[in-house]
Amino acid sequence: MPIYNAPTKDTQFVLHDVLKVSQSDIPGYDELESEFTGAVLEEAGKLATNVLHPLNTVGDTEGCTLENGVVRTPTGFKEAFEEVKAGGWTGLDMPEQYGGQNMPYVVGTAVGEMFSAANQAFTMYQGLTHGAASAILAHGTDEQKNTYLPNMVSCDWTGTMNLTEPHCGTDLGLMRTKAEPQADGSYKITGQKIFISSGDHDMAENIVHLVLAKIVGGPEGIKGVSLFIVPKYIVNEDGSLGNRNPATVGKIEEKMGIHGNSTCVMNYDDATGYLLGEEHKGMRAMFTMMNEARLGVGMQGLSMADAAYQNAVEYAKDRLQGRDVTGVKNPDGPADPLIVHPDIRRNLMDQKSFVEGARAFILWGASMIDAAHRKGDKDADGLISLLTPVIKGFLTDEGYDMTVQAQQVYGGHGYIEEWGMSQYTRDARIAMIYEGANGVQALDLVGRKLAADGGKHVMAFFELVKSYIKDNSGQDEAFDRDFLEPLKAASKDLQAAGMYFMQNATNPNNALSGSYDFMHMFGHVCLGLMWARMGKASLDALAAGAEDKEFYETKLVTGRFYMARRLPATGMHLARIQSGGDTVMTLDAASF
Amino acid sequence: MPIYNAPTKDTQFVLHDVLKVSQSDIPGYDELESEFTGAVLEEAGKLATNVLHPLNTVGDTEGCTLENGVVRTPTGFKEAFEEVKAGGWTGLDMPEQYGGQNMPYVVGTAVGEMFSAANQAFTMYQGLTHGAASAILAHGTDEQKNTYLPNMVSCDWTGTMNLTEPHCGTDLGLMRTKAEPQADGSYKITGQKIFISSGDHDMAENIVHLVLAKIVGGPEGIKGVSLFIVPKYIVNEDGSLGNRNPATVGKIEEKMGIHGNSTCVMNYDDATGYLLGEEHKGMRAMFTMMNEARLGVGMQGLSMADAAYQNAVEYAKDRLQGRDVTGVKNPDGPADPLIVHPDIRRNLMDQKSFVEGARAFILWGASMIDAAHRKGDKDADGLISLLTPVIKGFLTDEGYDMTVQAQQVYGGHGYIEEWGMSQYTRDARIAMIYEGANGVQALDLVGRKLAADGGKHVMAFFELVKSYIKDNSGQDEAFDRDFLEPLKAASKDLQAAGMYFMQNATNPNNALSGSYDFMHMFGHVCLGLMWARMGKASLDALAAGAEDKEFYETKLVTGRFYMARRLPATGMHLARIQSGGDTVMTLDAASF
Repeated sequence: MPIYNAPTKDTQFVLHDVLKVSQSDIPGYDELESEFTGAVLEEAGKLATNVLHPLNTVGDTEGCTLENGVVRTPTGFKEAFEEVKAGGWTGLDMPEQYGGQNMPYVVGTAVGEMFSAANQAFTMYQGLTHGAASAILAHGTDEQKNTYLPNMVSCDWTGTMNLTEPHCGTDLGLMRTKAEPQADGSYKITGQKIFISSGDHDMAENIVHLVLAKIVGGPEGIKGVSLFIVPKYIVNEDGSLGNRNPATVGKIEEKMGIHGNSTCVMNYDDATGYLLGEEHKGMRAMFTMMNEARLGVGMQGLSMADAAYQNAVEYAKDRLQGRDVTGVKNPDGPADPLIVHPDIRRNLMDQKSFVEGARAFILWGASMIDAAHRKGDKDADGLISLLTPVIKGFLTDEGYDMTVQAQQVYGGHGYIEEWGMSQYTRDARIAMIYEGANGVQALDLVGRKLAADGGKHVMAFFELVKSYIKDNSGQDEAFDRDFLEPLKAASKDLQAAGMYFMQNATNPNNALSGSYDFMHMFGHVCLGLMWARMGKASLDALAAGAEDKEFYETKLVTGRFYMARRLPATGMHLARIQSGGDTVMTLDAASF
Repeated sequence: MPIYNAPTKDTQFVLHDVLKVSQSDIPGYDELESEFTGAVLEEAGKLATNVLHPLNTVGDTEGCTLENGVVRTPTGFKEAFEEVKAGGWTGLDMPEQYGGQNMPYVVGTAVGEMFSAANQAFTMYQGLTHGAASAILAHGTDEQKNTYLPNMVSCDWTGTMNLTEPHCGTDLGLMRTKAEPQADGSYKITGQKIFISSGDHDMAENIVHLVLAKIVGGPEGIKGVSLFIVPKYIVNEDGSLGNRNPATVGKIEEKMGIHGNSTCVMNYDDATGYLLGEEHKGMRAMFTMMNEARLGVGMQGLSMADAAYQNAVEYAKDRLQGRDVTGVKNPDGPADPLIVHPDIRRNLMDQKSFVEGARAFILWGASMIDAAHRKGDKDADGLISLLTPVIKGFLTDEGYDMTVQAQQVYGGHGYIEEWGMSQYTRDARIAMIYEGANGVQALDLVGRKLAADGGKHVMAFFELVKSYIKDNSGQDEAFDRDFLEPLKAASKDLQAAGMYFMQNATNPNNALSGSYDFMHMFGHVCLGLMWARMGKASLDALAAGAEDKEFYETKLVTGRFYMARRLPATGMHLARIQSGGDTVMTLDAASF
């Protein structure tokens, strides 16, 4: 059975050595002393390792079943969900007013990484609820908030997001689900939604569906889309549960992975819904949560990569096969462990340097969301909006690749379900698709975010990298050479790509055909920046006589690996971009 | 349901426009006129599309089952297998003496690509038989050949290869299966073998297991390994089937994919076996078939990529979503087809340029095997030995990535099993692992093949590229710029990497930690060479006034894409390699 150990020490390093959260002026961050976050992470880690992780294989094997219209979750899910609820984990970063603990989002993210790594399919029930609750928090009336939020913060009721229909995913303007206004101010919702994660299950008393639909007679296309609250059971005025709403499960999809999560076809057949936010402003309501939701999916890329990596390392240390070419390392055994072999190490270092870099990137991103929400920091808001497609697209692509690499360490055993490595790749695959497929992230980045506010945010990003390099160079020759120079070169490649887009903007296809490469370049530069910051933090800690020298020295080696072996990808992406859109766009559709 | 169309036209282009097979002096190639190969491919394509392909989903869904010690294949497999046998496809490139058709291996490979693309799991029953028959052909006594080959060439009996044991895969010296000599010259084989593809099933009268085992009292380690023929049913002297041999199925493995193939744990319990080849020379006997077997797996990378690509194209043309940013393309529809979007095209062009390049590479490789076997061409033998790990490692890695990209075109539908795209990725994943995991291929390439015969073969490869460029430059400015110059640059990168290995050979880890990158660089240079050859062949055809102008012009566009957008990867790999082995090797195992 696979293992999972919560990365508490590494998360603490990012929070305190790198981001120095408790010294931040973001409201609430002053409470995030090392002992406090350490205690939270320790407890979360125990729950992840001892309760959620053992159910990961169970969820994959059993999946969810639909019996007489009711979805049954895998054995043990319900009990585990009760434990998560009882520990108060579901409301960690939700307002106290609704029963939450009001901790910063950065803490919720650090905990979320562990829960997802231990059991992604399970954690989605809570994750979707968080997303739906955030939408109600941002756009609901006081009455709606009071009716739904306390129960959703506690996860007594869970939530879903209903966007996709059989004929429309990315292009929601094509939506057919309709909403007919009723005399009492409610709506009758009719239509079919597909790919609804956590769509129905047996772990909650009620399920609060947030459904995008078009109000009859409203504007055409995307401008006529509104958002509705459609509870599985209508909530009576006294808060008790009333009639069953005709919001039913058509079927559970057979998926490649995340079998423990019930991905449903939902049929709404004159179901009672309540407008959330303004009429025809449904997309805007969805978009306000998008940074968070997409950062959450990027986090899943990290989670799966870390879980798979941990197992690959164990196997590489344990499995005896072949001998070290430079001399026998395990003379008493029949062979040396896999980890002596250079290509196995190259594989593991790719994974390790990604996982730790991604963790820093995700937590830095979460801290920007906190700065935007808690401090009203517009620059932070602009920067995280720019970086959100990078976090989502790059981290899920790379996260998936890392699960494939981890599986490869196992050889044939990686292909056998019993060893659990296949599940990591199958589960990780979805994160590249949902919450906006990664090609859509690339389009968002290049087609929208680069030019947003006159290009202010991308300029701010380059300025940030530049000042970081300037402020930290000239102190340590090796650091300059191994960290700052590669970062400078990669950042220069990224700027050159941006320049190419601007200079060739007469045909937008020149930029758009390079968007995916740009997203990946951007991701590498961000991880390069993170590794420079982590490298510097490690040097500082060593200079200050830190006790755990090995930890910091390992960081420096891992960082040097990333800078030397991963960052050069920016040159390749730049070359691809600079070759222009012609080879991509020339062929007729019929010639494919 | 997914589609599959046999790529007959493209295969014909490679065989005749590029490789010009019928003009070759390889014995048997003079028969390969365009009409002849066209007829063979046409028939093979029909069988693939109409018989094998419809069973692909069935195989995945039903899988194989073990009932009372007997393996049942999925519905329809037995009937389809009879059709393949009846058509004489199983002995296409086997000697006439044993009932085969004696066609060149290049034809068998072209047909094999189609069969694998249509149904990889199914085609493996035939493929393993081919491999086992080749081993008997190369190392068997006349009696063994006469006993087994006619039945194996017809696939009345199928074959398996038994190498792996629970504790040893790559490192076969650790093998425990033992062989005890008997008075009658036979051996009693005892041990457990795992991951045995086509290990048992209900489609053949007998199964001929080739089993590696150590003769009791022989040398330690790999030098004590011999190869044995262990039939499921002992063959009587008159050729009839006798006693059931105690070679039994322990279980069928639950795998990530290729469910239609029965991957078995095989238990040999004093089973009767017959020495194949010499005592203690089992590994050598295996190695003589390795080029073919590994080329066959590389071909699976191509097959899965092409099958997935074809479906992605269909979906991209069919699915309406969003509008072309440069102007509406489908004004009468609610949206434009996906294929108008630049990033979808970038994705499809990555796939298309890989598939067509890989097809040329595979067929070129197969023609070298023919030259080595049919003409005794030692240079061809040396070159294909060098390129074999590249074909296997690079084409299966890239082939897998392409199935993932194809799946991505489908968005959420790509994750739902019903659409079939998940199966392509799940099936393609195994090719990176079996027949020597790709890390082992990289090690073989850098640790063994580069230096083989004093580096003669790699020098010959560089010379081949150099002469190709020299012989073909100066005739067409655009061709020089778009094809030859990128090829030259990529080849230079590859040479620089080889030079780095030589100059830093005091520590072998410098080369070995760069082996995977080197394998990928090498693959890109080979595909670059293939694209240059295909580009030139297309220009020649156009200059000669070829009828199907569009076909050749499309080739040129696709080739330009590969040269501009894929070949720059060599620069990244070179940078990774030149960063040296230190960052890879420094950490203690405990620090991972």
